[in-house]
Amino acid sequence: MNKIQETFGIKYPIIQGGMIWCSGWRLASAVSNAGGLGLIGAGSMTPDLLREHIRKCKAATNEPFGVNLPLIYTHSEEMIQVVIEEGVKVVFTSAGNPAKYTKYLKDHGLIVAHVVANVKFALKCQDSGVDAVVAEGFEAGGHNGREETTTLALIPQVRKAVSIPLIAAGGIATGAGMLAAMALGADGVQIGSRFAASEESSAHDAFKKAIVEASDGSTVLTLKRLIPVRLIWNRFTREVEDMQTTGVSNEALLKKLGSGRARLGMFDGDTEEGELEIGQVSGLIDSILPVNDIIQNILSEYKSVQKQLLEEKFIF
Amino acid sequence: MNKIQETFGIKYPIIQGGMIWCSGWRLASAVSNAGGLGLIGAGSMTPDLLREHIRKCKAATNEPFGVNLPLIYTHSEEMIQVVIEEGVKVVFTSAGNPAKYTKYLKDHGLIVAHVVANVKFALKCQDSGVDAVVAEGFEAGGHNGREETTTLALIPQVRKAVSIPLIAAGGIATGAGMLAAMALGADGVQIGSRFAASEESSAHDAFKKAIVEASDGSTVLTLKRLIPVRLIWNRFTREVEDMQTTGVSNEALLKKLGSGRARLGMFDGDTEEGELEIGQVSGLIDSILPVNDIIQNILSEYKSVQKQLLEEKFIF
Repeated sequence: MNKIQETFGIKYPIIQGGMIWCSGWRLASAVSNAGGLGLIGAGSMTPDLLREHIRKCKAATNEPFGVNLPLIYTHSEEMIQVVIEEGVKVVFTSAGNPAKYTKYLKDHGLIVAHVVANVKFALKCQDSGVDAVVAEGFEAGGHNGREETTTLALIPQVRKAVSIPLIAAGGIATGAGMLAAMALGADGVQIGSRFAASEESSAHDAFKKAIVEASDGSTVLTLKRLIPVRLIWNRFTREVEDMQTTGVSNEALLKKLGSGRARLGMFDGDTEEGELEIGQVSGLIDSILPVNDIIQNILSEYKSVQKQLLEEKFIF
Repeated sequence: MNKIQETFGIKYPIIQGGMIWCSGWRLASAVSNAGGLGLIGAGSMTPDLLREHIRKCKAATNEPFGVNLPLIYTHSEEMIQVVIEEGVKVVFTSAGNPAKYTKYLKDHGLIVAHVVANVKFALKCQDSGVDAVVAEGFEAGGHNGREETTTLALIPQVRKAVSIPLIAAGGIATGAGMLAAMALGADGVQIGSRFAASEESSAHDAFKKAIVEASDGSTVLTLKRLIPVRLIWNRFTREVEDMQTTGVSNEALLKKLGSGRARLGMFDGDTEEGELEIGQVSGLIDSILPVNDIIQNILSEYKSVQKQLLEEKFIF
């Protein structure tokens, strides 16, 4: 067992990233049943809805699962109470300061991981007693760090700085990608986009189809002046990018953004006017598969690439 | 021998990226003598100076070496004549269309590689008869693709699309990075930043020091409206970024840029007013070393990480 398998009590060191509008109880329990760690993405939920998803997830799996909690919402403390009351064992926090809730969560018996995009916050995680740090690179979908450090550059720098278990995120969808992340110093991987396009994902079929059709260059990190987010290019994204190059105010951008854009695109399936949050690795995803097949494919490719590296690639 | 070792007749599938103001005959010959492929970076040279560097490089090594020719200059054809007249065996072209000169270069007996940043141009390389394609990710220093695809996302997508030998570039400075690139489907690696901070690099000591002092977040991809280039944050970079967010004209940006900014920073050592072109992986570089040590360190780390992957990382 490596550090990530041990920390979370899971069979394979594969975490399913918590994703708004994609990862409810159905996806999370499928990933946990397949030997990974499923995460309910609480970012798009009210406290009541989160409670419902946790209860359904408990009914659907006996394996460990967790909740991803972005710490940017006003109801964060209420969400934390739900997680504790419902006896969830694992929390992945993101988009905030790990010093704020880690001690409280750990005092209530939770295993805590926190998502970062730079070395400074990885160190802060370690100092705060976080059990594992997720380092996420620029290629990741959805909200993203301001330094724009890619997974390939970020993981070895975080590895050098901290000794706690390290999970690589951003740009990983395959066994080859997982092996690359492990070579760079990760103990496990967090995979989002590949699971967004799974059968068990709650994303709208039109969004899943957009992921499958994406190629390299289909996404862009936009809205950098507000909170950077990686989206598929569509009418909305093009209009926002055009506004930004002409130097409009943040107020005008916020007005254009409005509310509910992510739900509109990812859950309701308006692929031109909605926000479609997905990673660059969507260019590699060409099918919608059941979660169990996705994980088995990753594992078998991991093995075969490992063999290639030893026997064919470069022998000296 | 793998495909890259065979194609270029080199001991290790490690290419030293051609870099303006860093990679003259001294660096290129040192890399070739150490078993990699050294490239003279012709981008900052006149045809006469290139001829001088080629002659000195031939005198300094009996191993294969090459010339990197960015195809954006008005004197590209004159440079090609110099390369042919001087009997250089290898050319890496970049920043242009591979269809333009590849046949001509190959008809004159040269081995040709071309640098791309997306799948479309990788396919164009293959169609043009290029011997090897270099796929370079967003994290790379200097001039860079517009799609911003990272090495981790780009290499498997290019690998899926083409069957010609594939060299990964961008974000690679170590044996772990090289192994990750090979896992993703590359047959070899192109390394720039690590060699820019070598003893044999012709960069100014102040620039080498800036590379060693860089951490994650020290660089930014800027000047996107002109030609995107990754630079270290300094006074010049901050001023340019500020100008861009206020929506100034391209003319104003060009005026601010002026001429000779790269030479000023990288060769003359003005680290505040000059352009300092370097990759995100500079955050991992903490010493100025002789080329031979750099290559031996990469190889020994490659071996040890390969062993870790097999014996410790994740066994199933």
